[in-house]
Amino acid sequence: MRFGVDIGGTNVRVGLVDRAGNIVDHDVVRCSLYETAADLVLTIAYTILRLAKVNGVKASGIGIGCPNACPLDGTVENATNLKFKQKFSLKELFHQYFPDIPVMVDNDANAAALGEMVYGKGRGLSDYVFVTLGTGVGSGIVSGGKLVYGLNGQAGEIGHMIVEPDGRDCGCGRKGCLERYVAAEGAFQTYVELCKAAGHSPLANDCRGISDLAQAGDAQACQTYEIMGRCLGMALANVACVTAPSHIFVFGGVAQAGELLLEPFRRHFNRNLLYCYRNQIKIELSGLMSNQHNAAILGAAALLG
Amino acid sequence: MRFGVDIGGTNVRVGLVDRAGNIVDHDVVRCSLYETAADLVLTIAYTILRLAKVNGVKASGIGIGCPNACPLDGTVENATNLKFKQKFSLKELFHQYFPDIPVMVDNDANAAALGEMVYGKGRGLSDYVFVTLGTGVGSGIVSGGKLVYGLNGQAGEIGHMIVEPDGRDCGCGRKGCLERYVAAEGAFQTYVELCKAAGHSPLANDCRGISDLAQAGDAQACQTYEIMGRCLGMALANVACVTAPSHIFVFGGVAQAGELLLEPFRRHFNRNLLYCYRNQIKIELSGLMSNQHNAAILGAAALLG
Repeated sequence: MRFGVDIGGTNVRVGLVDRAGNIVDHDVVRCSLYETAADLVLTIAYTILRLAKVNGVKASGIGIGCPNACPLDGTVENATNLKFKQKFSLKELFHQYFPDIPVMVDNDANAAALGEMVYGKGRGLSDYVFVTLGTGVGSGIVSGGKLVYGLNGQAGEIGHMIVEPDGRDCGCGRKGCLERYVAAEGAFQTYVELCKAAGHSPLANDCRGISDLAQAGDAQACQTYEIMGRCLGMALANVACVTAPSHIFVFGGVAQAGELLLEPFRRHFNRNLLYCYRNQIKIELSGLMSNQHNAAILGAAALLG
Repeated sequence: MRFGVDIGGTNVRVGLVDRAGNIVDHDVVRCSLYETAADLVLTIAYTILRLAKVNGVKASGIGIGCPNACPLDGTVENATNLKFKQKFSLKELFHQYFPDIPVMVDNDANAAALGEMVYGKGRGLSDYVFVTLGTGVGSGIVSGGKLVYGLNGQAGEIGHMIVEPDGRDCGCGRKGCLERYVAAEGAFQTYVELCKAAGHSPLANDCRGISDLAQAGDAQACQTYEIMGRCLGMALANVACVTAPSHIFVFGGVAQAGELLLEPFRRHFNRNLLYCYRNQIKIELSGLMSNQHNAAILGAAALLG
């Protein structure tokens, strides 16, 4: 039976996944306990062997989603949310313990985009864009039924499309990237700026709070989603000119706001869209939203094809 | 032997192409003589049969590049440069005369992008963007060694990415599309505006003239290419975030300016590019530039695979 491993900044989630996409069993490894990638992988490997034994199955393949992982050679470099900054080969570390079964590595956004294809709303679709809105903005582009990898496996960085020339400073060293307006921190910054302009203190501390306020009709909270929708609409309308997807699936913590975000996103998207695509491209929540931890495990398992 | 047919607004070029990409023989059909698509196709079919007979070969396949053609079903609709505005099936019209051989139809930009792959600099590359700068801006996106088609075959419309919100009016009904700054008419408009601002009359009548002036160091002509390079650089840096191409090939009449255009394009592109792609993506003239009429025929022939 296959295993899906989701490596995050805080936790590693290891799941045993059956053919139908059910997570039969799972466990969590705390990243903070390990000083080197090798130590962390040793514990993950042990966890896989233990889950296999407890459930009376053999591991047939391991799919691993990890921030900044390169799908071409299975290495990880400069993962901002991980302790281990130096380049290391996740694939080779796993192969030491599992030399005889396939080990597939990809970045977390690509893994989730594949999870959508295998277990979510992407089934049977050949062209879609998967956008994950959380701490950052990730994306996976599916074209002709396959993930777009591009040069060094680095396609799908739409969080760093520039939507506002000379806009907000981005951690990437440039200005005005989409991520700075629609990821969690950027959204919160917008909300705080709007409150300041309105002459009152912020009433929320995070995106969840902004979502609750917007549900209750708070003007600044609603305006925050309007601005996020405008930025997403502009950027994704330009993405449509490149790959012409039939669907855009939105995933991640920030997307839990649902229609609060999707309605202005759709409206600005269609307003900015070239006529030949207009009202033809569907924007929906990911089919994997109900349990995002499971989604990451399923996405990782989907890397095995 | 295969035939490549390039249908343009003024002329249809019909070429007999050998395996090595040599145009063994060719002929031209004048579009203006025909009132219906059926009449035009009849004459093209006759031309193919005549060229085959004269050269003592049999037609083994026909590839057809045509503005606004849909690669999925071989229909053409709303082709702005053709007389026939109503939707018609180019593929079916050809199949009447050639029922037993493959007939492939695609739009002219996709055909040229494939021509680059089969006969140009795209040989052996898996990820590149082909941009044609002429009356309009067309593009073909190659990912994983294949053309990206997307919804209804309408991918690769990067000429309509918005680079200047609330910018110049575009024929598509929106504002600020890339095409309005880097296609022939847009470039000329920029030049005229710069001359006006500098307080003198334009010294050139078209892009060729602007290119000649820039070669001689004319300030407004040079500035025109600077602005074109900036718009191309911004738009293509965003395209890089989507598909991460290894190369960008530039084609078409406006690209005949060569380094006058490519130098500012590269500079602004790298300035706007996400760090992980920086100095890794090559911007070059298309390998098919030497004879653009031939390129269109070769591109059409390349549709046959």
